[in-house]
Amino acid sequence: MNNFVYRNPTELIFGAGQLSHLPEKARQLGSTVLLVYGGGSIKRSGLYDQVTAHLAEAGCRVIELPGVEPNPRLATVKKGIELCRQERADWILAVGGGSVIDAAKAVAVGVPYDGDVWDFYLRRAVPEKALPLGTVLTLAATGSEMNRSSVVTNWETQEKLGASTTFPAFSILDPTYTFTVPRDQTIYGICDMMSHVFEQYFSHTPEIPLQTRFAESILKTVIENAERVLEKPADYDARANLLYCGTMALNGTLPVGVETDWATHKIEHAVSAIYDIPHGGGLAIIFPKWMRYVYRENVERFSRYATEVWGIDADGKTDEELSLAGIEATEAFFARIGAPTRLADYQIGEENLDAMAEKATPFGPIGNFKQLTSTDVREILRMCL
Amino acid sequence: MNNFVYRNPTELIFGAGQLSHLPEKARQLGSTVLLVYGGGSIKRSGLYDQVTAHLAEAGCRVIELPGVEPNPRLATVKKGIELCRQERADWILAVGGGSVIDAAKAVAVGVPYDGDVWDFYLRRAVPEKALPLGTVLTLAATGSEMNRSSVVTNWETQEKLGASTTFPAFSILDPTYTFTVPRDQTIYGICDMMSHVFEQYFSHTPEIPLQTRFAESILKTVIENAERVLEKPADYDARANLLYCGTMALNGTLPVGVETDWATHKIEHAVSAIYDIPHGGGLAIIFPKWMRYVYRENVERFSRYATEVWGIDADGKTDEELSLAGIEATEAFFARIGAPTRLADYQIGEENLDAMAEKATPFGPIGNFKQLTSTDVREILRMCL
Repeated sequence: MNNFVYRNPTELIFGAGQLSHLPEKARQLGSTVLLVYGGGSIKRSGLYDQVTAHLAEAGCRVIELPGVEPNPRLATVKKGIELCRQERADWILAVGGGSVIDAAKAVAVGVPYDGDVWDFYLRRAVPEKALPLGTVLTLAATGSEMNRSSVVTNWETQEKLGASTTFPAFSILDPTYTFTVPRDQTIYGICDMMSHVFEQYFSHTPEIPLQTRFAESILKTVIENAERVLEKPADYDARANLLYCGTMALNGTLPVGVETDWATHKIEHAVSAIYDIPHGGGLAIIFPKWMRYVYRENVERFSRYATEVWGIDADGKTDEELSLAGIEATEAFFARIGAPTRLADYQIGEENLDAMAEKATPFGPIGNFKQLTSTDVREILRMCL
Repeated sequence: MNNFVYRNPTELIFGAGQLSHLPEKARQLGSTVLLVYGGGSIKRSGLYDQVTAHLAEAGCRVIELPGVEPNPRLATVKKGIELCRQERADWILAVGGGSVIDAAKAVAVGVPYDGDVWDFYLRRAVPEKALPLGTVLTLAATGSEMNRSSVVTNWETQEKLGASTTFPAFSILDPTYTFTVPRDQTIYGICDMMSHVFEQYFSHTPEIPLQTRFAESILKTVIENAERVLEKPADYDARANLLYCGTMALNGTLPVGVETDWATHKIEHAVSAIYDIPHGGGLAIIFPKWMRYVYRENVERFSRYATEVWGIDADGKTDEELSLAGIEATEAFFARIGAPTRLADYQIGEENLDAMAEKATPFGPIGNFKQLTSTDVREILRMCL
């Protein structure tokens, strides 16, 4: 186990009806709030009305940043920063999925910062202050509700970059809000959270038994609940289990003392910066190919993955065979739940392979399980065609 | 899964040499610090000198509360409160194991409180303010380094009670500090952390797959590292794994959405309030008997425990047989590592069974897996003789 520092101050408020905590939270955070949301599904579902009623109950003046995109854009973030400054917002409430929360985080650190908020994403500056942020989550996927990561797309430069911004002060997770998530978004969320675990599981760090078992626990729980929610979208327990898995997959518990990878996410960001495809869809395509490209670096780890996560019988199999069986089980699972399996599913051909490979490696080689140059990335993307 | 609210703001600073973070933490928390420690082992090991040198580097004035007992006493806590008030301490640093930290937490909430600090333990008041607290942990056991629980013994009334007090702001966990922990203390720590998991694992709450797997992950990791540290006390990785397990066993991760039990801890507190035996030793004696007394309430849960944690082959066994096999495996493990197995090991006979049974149930029946009256507790204690 490596040395580590871990801290996560976000208050998680989980379960049906927990929105009732919002007024008490609002009163603690101030009287003017920027409400950040996406394309309007929260208006159709009635959640918008419930949230604004609770904010009114707490005496909050509400200003709004609607229309946050699925891959949230820098221009939208800057609009939010401007609004907060003009209206002297005390805090921010994000209601939506990971994109809405990521945009809200960018606004939260951008408001008290003198420079360009994009500096944080270019690693030119580190956020020191932030407006307080609360979230009401509507999608089981990114884990953004309980970490300080934020991914924003600069459409002018075709860059999709992540930064460490600010933890939400609180996040309200009501599984019933995820009942009406469309089937494709549910699938993307499943792929997304599994990918988060993969990035932190495939590691060469020795002596990380508890971290390893925690990661396997999340994967097994996602796998056994995924088909349940697809068959019965209003299955409370299955939705609750998935929602909790999404949070635990990326709240800082898994990577403590572990050298993590994150190359696949960088490759996906490069793809979706050019093609604006759903993040979870891109990951479902790329991850199994990444696995095939890198597994020989540590067949013991991939063998363990096959037996522990997929229950594959090790009898009579070499580590190589077991590793491949585990990767095949991953591919079969993604196909079974209806995730995309090829870039062709998004009408992406080989026209931008070079550009994407370069974009994925702006600061040099990526990844730790196997260091990947732009040539390696190009080959993985070619395997995805 | 039940609804829950989870928040844990403690910063965990883990690994060899991490004491180097102390000066920066000290500078943040103030110039006068109360240093709380136990019987002097930190002086023999040299840790005391290192800590005070780091505090001097940060310009801190140090006042001291030495001599905290293994079951920390209310009188000692009150002495600490008095000291902090007289010397206007800004914060508290606990260097030691769970008892030292528990005492320091009591001091931290007692200083800004007008009434008697014992009120918090009698549930007559809830702490609203606390002096900031940091810890340097020297023993893998209680998890007190990353939660807000504190257990204190009032020797005058022979009461050992727990209260929710305050989270440490930071905790430094260096596995090398646990190399010199005596063999019996190492064993008690192992029994203690396993017992913490048991209290949160044996539950009737349906649909808690991730919480269940996390609990099993901790138990399996403790079991596979326990004999390693007993064979080779300076095995860094084994000590690190145990230390991390102890923290995760009781930092609020396991009980989210779960109805937990805690009856066995209350029974042990009643025993050690009268006999002043080591907490972990008492738990090792009582837990297997509690299991035997209650397992029929949910043989599916106890069967799962047997197969998942102990790897017992389910083939051809009834749930009842599997449950008993899991309990026997627990007893065999505790015996194998050298934990006490009977109250007689501490020269405790039947003379105080009634008194202990009453003391364990001061507010009525205890436990959730099976509600236990004082009569039930008496019977469990009789099985422990």
